Amino acid sequence: MRIYLVPTVKDIEKDILLNKSAVMFDILRASSTISTALANGCTSVIPVSEVTEAFELAKRLPEGTFLLGGERGAVKLPGFHLGNSPLEYQPETVKQKTVILTTTNGTQTVCRVAEGCGNVMIGSLLNASAVAHSLLAKQQDVVLVCAGTRGKFSLEDTLAAGMVIREIVKKLGKRKSANQARIAPAQKVYLDEIPLMDKGELIMEDAATAALRLAEYYANQPLQALYDSLHGQKLVQMGLVADLAYCAQVDLFNVVPVYREGVIGLEAVSF
Amino acid sequence: MRIYLVPTVKDIEKDILLNKSAVMFDILRASSTISTALANGCTSVIPVSEVTEAFELAKRLPEGTFLLGGERGAVKLPGFHLGNSPLEYQPETVKQKTVILTTTNGTQTVCRVAEGCGNVMIGSLLNASAVAHSLLAKQQDVVLVCAGTRGKFSLEDTLAAGMVIREIVKKLGKRKSANQARIAPAQKVYLDEIPLMDKGELIMEDAATAALRLAEYYANQPLQALYDSLHGQKLVQMGLVADLAYCAQVDLFNVVPVYREGVIGLEAVSF
Repeated sequence: MRIYLVPTVKDIEKDILLNKSAVMFDILRASSTISTALANGCTSVIPVSEVTEAFELAKRLPEGTFLLGGERGAVKLPGFHLGNSPLEYQPETVKQKTVILTTTNGTQTVCRVAEGCGNVMIGSLLNASAVAHSLLAKQQDVVLVCAGTRGKFSLEDTLAAGMVIREIVKKLGKRKSANQARIAPAQKVYLDEIPLMDKGELIMEDAATAALRLAEYYANQPLQALYDSLHGQKLVQMGLVADLAYCAQVDLFNVVPVYREGVIGLEAVSF
Repeated sequence: MRIYLVPTVKDIEKDILLNKSAVMFDILRASSTISTALANGCTSVIPVSEVTEAFELAKRLPEGTFLLGGERGAVKLPGFHLGNSPLEYQPETVKQKTVILTTTNGTQTVCRVAEGCGNVMIGSLLNASAVAHSLLAKQQDVVLVCAGTRGKFSLEDTLAAGMVIREIVKKLGKRKSANQARIAPAQKVYLDEIPLMDKGELIMEDAATAALRLAEYYANQPLQALYDSLHGQKLVQMGLVADLAYCAQVDLFNVVPVYREGVIGLEAVSF
């Protein structure tokens, strides 16, 4: 398995997504909100790029069956039922509802990635292990796409991608111990760190290795990474500390949201 | 002081280099070779992009005053005196000589960065603290440009940039302890990590923060980062393990090579 990491949407190169499993990360807050809404019983999330598109879609759905959710500049949109805080997407609010979601960055990213490969998983810290297990089950090469913030590298999305890689490495590590014993000592110094360059199972781009190391650095303090990020600091300044604390929870849910033909629904995951 | 980090040469945006101190990192191996050659007494390094350019320049210099150095695909060029291993640039070889250097990636990167801001410092693990001290003395905003490998993010260059940031944070941390005591506890959780968003001294892009965390992760094992990197692994496969061990030495030299008007010479540094 090869793991590619795309640091921001603008770094998506032609054909990089072809014949691979793709995951999108925009953990503050679109990815976390989507995972939460679906884990809490909403029937589906429909991501749209523009606010006008959201209102037009709403007109075509029966009253009471849907919720309009989203933000611009981290602020809830006028006329919408919900903002982009995952804390608003509680079971009593979202159960059996369709959520029409539009955010500054995340919903566009989903659509952009889907152009390249059809299906896109939605990753966050909340469901990092579930995403990792789904990727392992598919046995395809993997592209992790970080949404980034205002077109630039974002610490929090890269951390979440790293947490998924860390889980994959842990699982593969358990499987490959028998092979590893046969690797020559001179090579072992890097082979069991990467792990497995030529012999096998896992080859990572440097960007993926860096994300893995970030995840190891922040493993016991993921919330610190969100405080360290510029976008996290902006949310703190806006009084949204509770959102950061919520989004920093690793493996809260065992769900994998998947975007397919315009709609995000749940993929069943068995551990 | 603001710190920007450009992950690869292709990420250099218009105007990002204007009115800032710029540092270029291509630590496997151009940056490390340049630092070594100058620390070992060569008079200057002239980086050129093309092999033919190197031979033409050599024709104009008196015999015995210069050395042709460089590589393509990590292999020494035919007709050249030296390859691109820093271990070849010993005092007895380079003293009082001009080195004409052309490498696959690093020498082009220096010229590309210089287009944007005139002077470019050359950074590596070998001189990380010296570069940090020079940047602090200049009191300008900073852009750290990683050369990358084949147009992609490289772990080893980002690590070296992170080591420079780590040294800057250490120095500024000592200065700002008095201020920090006045920061409200609720904000302190991120202010003393970043450090200093609104109040002051240091603001970092997320890419710079990630590099700092990588440097902290690998602080006691920088060689491991070089083994973890794909370019490092390629050099190991070519039998160049000794080069990795050499380039992984932090603060071997107290020198700051600076490119200015086509020539790299030493900037004096006082600690």
